[in-house]
Amino acid sequence: MSNLTEMGKQAVAAKYELQRADTKSKNQALLKIAQAFRDNQQRIIKANAEDLENGRRKEMHPGLLDRLALDERRINAMAEGLEQVALLPDPIGEVLDQFERPNGLKITKVRVPIGVIGIIYESRPNVTADAFSLCFKSGNVTILKGGSDAIHSNIVIAQVIRDTLTACGFNPDVLQLIEDTDRSIVREFMQMNDCVDVLIPRGSAGLIRSVVESSTIPVIETGTGNCHIYVDDAADFEKAIPIIINAKTQRIGVCNAAESLVIHRSIRQQFLPLLAEQLRAHHVEMRGDADTMAVLPDVVPATEEDYGKEYLDYIISMKTVDSVEEAIAHINRYNTGHSETIVTENEAHARMFLDRVDAACVYVNASTRFTDGFEFGFGAEIGISTQKLHARGPMGLKELTSYKYEIVGNGQIRK
Amino acid sequence: MSNLTEMGKQAVAAKYELQRADTKSKNQALLKIAQAFRDNQQRIIKANAEDLENGRRKEMHPGLLDRLALDERRINAMAEGLEQVALLPDPIGEVLDQFERPNGLKITKVRVPIGVIGIIYESRPNVTADAFSLCFKSGNVTILKGGSDAIHSNIVIAQVIRDTLTACGFNPDVLQLIEDTDRSIVREFMQMNDCVDVLIPRGSAGLIRSVVESSTIPVIETGTGNCHIYVDDAADFEKAIPIIINAKTQRIGVCNAAESLVIHRSIRQQFLPLLAEQLRAHHVEMRGDADTMAVLPDVVPATEEDYGKEYLDYIISMKTVDSVEEAIAHINRYNTGHSETIVTENEAHARMFLDRVDAACVYVNASTRFTDGFEFGFGAEIGISTQKLHARGPMGLKELTSYKYEIVGNGQIRK
Repeated sequence: MSNLTEMGKQAVAAKYELQRADTKSKNQALLKIAQAFRDNQQRIIKANAEDLENGRRKEMHPGLLDRLALDERRINAMAEGLEQVALLPDPIGEVLDQFERPNGLKITKVRVPIGVIGIIYESRPNVTADAFSLCFKSGNVTILKGGSDAIHSNIVIAQVIRDTLTACGFNPDVLQLIEDTDRSIVREFMQMNDCVDVLIPRGSAGLIRSVVESSTIPVIETGTGNCHIYVDDAADFEKAIPIIINAKTQRIGVCNAAESLVIHRSIRQQFLPLLAEQLRAHHVEMRGDADTMAVLPDVVPATEEDYGKEYLDYIISMKTVDSVEEAIAHINRYNTGHSETIVTENEAHARMFLDRVDAACVYVNASTRFTDGFEFGFGAEIGISTQKLHARGPMGLKELTSYKYEIVGNGQIRK
Repeated sequence: MSNLTEMGKQAVAAKYELQRADTKSKNQALLKIAQAFRDNQQRIIKANAEDLENGRRKEMHPGLLDRLALDERRINAMAEGLEQVALLPDPIGEVLDQFERPNGLKITKVRVPIGVIGIIYESRPNVTADAFSLCFKSGNVTILKGGSDAIHSNIVIAQVIRDTLTACGFNPDVLQLIEDTDRSIVREFMQMNDCVDVLIPRGSAGLIRSVVESSTIPVIETGTGNCHIYVDDAADFEKAIPIIINAKTQRIGVCNAAESLVIHRSIRQQFLPLLAEQLRAHHVEMRGDADTMAVLPDVVPATEEDYGKEYLDYIISMKTVDSVEEAIAHINRYNTGHSETIVTENEAHARMFLDRVDAACVYVNASTRFTDGFEFGFGAEIGISTQKLHARGPMGLKELTSYKYEIVGNGQIRK
C-alpha cells in the first residue's frame, strides 16, 4: 500500500462513495470498529510491543515511550472514542443558507465533506483511530502518515479498521496508511494537490513548521500555544491565583497551558508574593523583568526569547505593564493566536481585552485550559487551529467540512 | 515604500487600529476615496498613459492593452464600485453563535477580520481600488502586488487612496502597494508568514499555480473554471440550447464560461444538429468524440487534453455518455471544482447531479455564468474560490473574515 500515486487515486475513488454514505451506515461501522479494537486487543498490544522494544533500543525519552505505549485501558479508550463519535450528529447535508434571486434561481448552501484529508502525526498511535473516526464521520477520506516509531502499532490499527470497513460494505480505501517510513515520502505526500484537499499536521512545533513550509496543499496549523494570563489592576486575586495555577500546572505539556503572565504594575507589591508562594509550591520556575525581580528576589531574569517561548514545562515568564493597553500590545506581539485570559472585575478593561487581543480564544476570568473541543461541547476535537483561515480554535466535526451551492433554475441565462 | 520587512511591520501595526474602526468611519472613507478618484481623474489617466505607452512599445496583445487602459468611464466605474461597497452591511462584529457551558462559561463566536491580506494580480489596474475596498470594509489591511505593466497606474491609484485615508484619520498603511517590480520580491512576499494571513492571487491559471506552489502563507485559489454542461436524456432542448449558447458565448474570457459539453447518447441524433447550427452561428469550434463526429461531420476530434482544458475562447469540447452516472464521473474527473450544470426535466437525475458533482456551484437548468458574487446577491466579489478550505464559490465580504471565541467566566478552572 505504499505507492503514493496509487493511494491518491484510490482515495479519490473512495471519496465519491463516502460522500453519499448515510449517517446510519457510518455510525454502524464506527461501532463495529470499536468492537474490533476490543476483539483484536492482543494483536495490537503485540505490534505495539515491537515499537516499544525498538524505542527502548534507540533510548527514546521515557515520556515519548509512554505516549507510544498501548495497553488494555488505552485500547479501550480508543474504542470508546469511536463510540462517542458515532453518537455525534452528522454535519453533512446541513442547509447553511437558502435564498431565491429576483430571476427565480433558488440557491441552497449545503454542508459537504472536504474530500480527502491528509494527517501527518508523531508518536501516539491512538491518533490513528481518533483522526480516522472524525474524518470518516464527517464524510472525508483519510490518508495517514504516522511517525516511524509507531509504525507496527499503526499498521495493525489501520488493518483492523480497514477489515471492519470492508465487512460493513465500505470501500476500505476511505482509510489509507502510508507505511513507507522513508523521509522523502513525506515530501511527496505534501505535494499531492490533485488528490489531497487539506493537510493537518499534529505534533511538535517543528513538525508543524516543516509542513507549513513544504506543503503545496492547504494546511491547517494547529496546536502551538504561547498563552498569556493578564492580571489587571482591577483583578480579584482569589480568582487570579487559582486560574494561573490551573492554567500553568494542571497539565504542562499541552498547547492550552499558560506560559506567560502579564501583571499590572500597581498590584505587584500585594499580588506577586501571594502568587509566588503558590507557584513555588507547584515547583514552577519564574522568569521575570526587573519590576517583578524587585518584588521577588528568586525570579530569574527573563530574556526577549522567554516572552516568545512555549515552555511546555514548569516555567513561567512574567512581565509588568502600566495599563491594559500595554498588556494587549505585549500579548499581540508575542502570542501564537491560541488562548489569552484577562483577570479583572473592570468591565471596560474586559471588553477592551476581548476586542483587541488577536487570538482564537480570548477569556475573561477563566483558565486558558478550556480551549478544547470537548470543553466547548463539540463532542470531539481534531486539533486547535491557530490560523485564521477556514477554522479557528477548537476543531470538531463541522470544522472538517466545506460547503457547496446548489442552484435550481428553469432555463435562466445571464443577460 | 519598497522594503518588504518594513511594510510587513507597518501592516501589522495598522491591523490592530483597523480592526476596531467603526462602520461609519469606514464608509465615509470609502465615499471620500470615490470622490478623490473623480477629482484626480486626469492624474490617473496621465499615469495610465505611461503604462499604455510602455505596453505598446513592448507590443503587448491588444486584449491586454484594453484591460490595462483607464479612461473617464472606467475611473468613474471604480468610484462607483467603492460607493457600492460603502452601502453593504459591515460583516465585522456579527455574533455567529452563542452558548453557555454547564460550568457557567459563556462562549460567543464573533466575526472578526482576517488581518492582513496579500493580493497578487496582473494587468488590470482597477483591481487596485476594487480589492482594497473589499478588504478595507471587512476590516483587513491590504498589501498589493500588481503587475509591472500597470505600475504607474497602480502607484497613483494607491497614492490617492492613502492620501484620502490620512485625511479621514486612518493610518494610510491599511493599504500598501509593493512598487518594486523585481521578480524576486514576489517570492519574498509569499514567505511573509509573520505578517500576512492569507494570499489571494487574481489572474491567469499560471499565476495562480505559481503562488500555490511557492507560498508558505495560506492561499485562496480562485478563478480557474473548466465548467461543463450536461444535457440529459430528459433535457428540454428549448432550455438546453439557450443555456449552452449563453454559458459559452456571452463572455468567453471568464472563469464561469462553459468549456465542455456532456451529452446523453440517446438524444444526440435529434439534439446535436440543432445545437451545432446555433454554435456555428456564434463561431464556436466544436471538438468531440467519435459519437458526436458520427452525427456532426464538421466536429474536430477531441483529445484527452481537450477535456481538461479551460479554453477561454470560441471552442467547446463534447463528450457522449450513456447515463447521468457516467456524466458525473466524467465531470468529476476533468472539472476544476467551479461550476457545472445539468439540463434535465428528470428530478431524480437532477438530485443525483446536485449530490454527486464535486464543485463549488452545481446547477439545474441554468447557465454557469451565474457563479458571481453580484449574481448571488453578495453585493461584491473578490474572486471565486475553487478550493474547499475556508471559502468555496463566490467570495464577498463575509468570506474575507475569520472568527474568534470570546469566553466570559467568573473564576472557572479546569478539573
